Amino acid sequence: MEFKLYNYYRSSCSYRVRIALELKKIDYSYIPIHLIENGGHQNTLEYQKINTKQEVPTLIHNETPISQSMAIIEYLDEIKPDISPLLPKNPIQRAYVRQACEIINSGIQPLQNLRILNKLVNDYQISDPQKKAWINDLVTNGLVSFEKFISNKSGLYCFGDTISAADLFLVPQIFSSQRFGVDLEPFKALMQINENCLKLTTFQNSHPNAQPDNPELKA
Amino acid sequence: MEFKLYNYYRSSCSYRVRIALELKKIDYSYIPIHLIENGGHQNTLEYQKINTKQEVPTLIHNETPISQSMAIIEYLDEIKPDISPLLPKNPIQRAYVRQACEIINSGIQPLQNLRILNKLVNDYQISDPQKKAWINDLVTNGLVSFEKFISNKSGLYCFGDTISAADLFLVPQIFSSQRFGVDLEPFKALMQINENCLKLTTFQNSHPNAQPDNPELKA
Repeated sequence: MEFKLYNYYRSSCSYRVRIALELKKIDYSYIPIHLIENGGHQNTLEYQKINTKQEVPTLIHNETPISQSMAIIEYLDEIKPDISPLLPKNPIQRAYVRQACEIINSGIQPLQNLRILNKLVNDYQISDPQKKAWINDLVTNGLVSFEKFISNKSGLYCFGDTISAADLFLVPQIFSSQRFGVDLEPFKALMQINENCLKLTTFQNSHPNAQPDNPELKA
Repeated sequence: MEFKLYNYYRSSCSYRVRIALELKKIDYSYIPIHLIENGGHQNTLEYQKINTKQEVPTLIHNETPISQSMAIIEYLDEIKPDISPLLPKNPIQRAYVRQACEIINSGIQPLQNLRILNKLVNDYQISDPQKKAWINDLVTNGLVSFEKFISNKSGLYCFGDTISAADLFLVPQIFSSQRFGVDLEPFKALMQINENCLKLTTFQNSHPNAQPDNPELKA
């Protein structure tokens, strides 16, 4: 098959790219990379050859690997510009969408990903409640600024009534924040957008609960 | 003036955008935001109105604020596509450049920025040597993957012999890593690219040492 996605069902960065592939109507082979089992399959020598940072996701298109979810999403939007465009046409509007994506991509996710949480526990012996406080503080801080930023721009979705790349970052971030037990009660506008997105089959099909490597599916 | 840049001389994200403005030959007003003085000027109510995340840089173009260095750099490349293009034309090559940018933008810088280091010290009482080890580990890990990724793609600069957005992320990252005392000796290829970039007046003019809010300039 032309497209392959190395990914993990509950990785939020993987989830972003799955939504993009669904929206772009691209068929792909799903290749699960278990991030925890046997020290993490992302750390095998074989996987390092296609992803020097040993992270998911990696998209393979015609044998060429691309990683970093933001770069993959921009790539998919460039090769399939006419199907569900993920960025508006106007440069300022494009900048706004990218700014929103980055508030999550560089401003929240890297601070609460598996590697950093493991490092805090293993190297700095932080306790479980301290770990929860770390996640809660940093996610809340990022979501507050995200919500303020889109407050005069949103509609059904982050930017008006059309899905944009920003929704592909928000929905997986809400998913993982719920999993970590972050209090999302204050984020009424974001939760409404999340709910609106989850009504779409594209978001349902790419949801962690619907992926073949989700152990609850096998049960 | 049409363009204004709210920024701080030694912030690596500010430095990235200054290089882009220089390369694009855009005149701009330099508005210093001191990140430490009086609890940080980025935290004033006035600044929060233009940057909900209270971070530098923020670019103002015709009264419209844009933040997140990646979004600003993409924007500048879109409005001035013919002057020093920062991304190649081919979609795969563009994806490679963005991937390299993100290894630094989301993979290194957020983990060692001022806010996180302050949080580690204030909330988790980590010692000074522990703070140094944190920075050293995370920067080294990121630069290893960056260097591996560009190893078969680089020339004088990260991607061949033409400046791309990736160089705008690498050079400021090297600057801040040197400031933090990270051992950069192993990164021979990256240090050579850094040296090649710093020979260009565009990189010299945007260097922290040449900015009006650098206190050493006033001394």
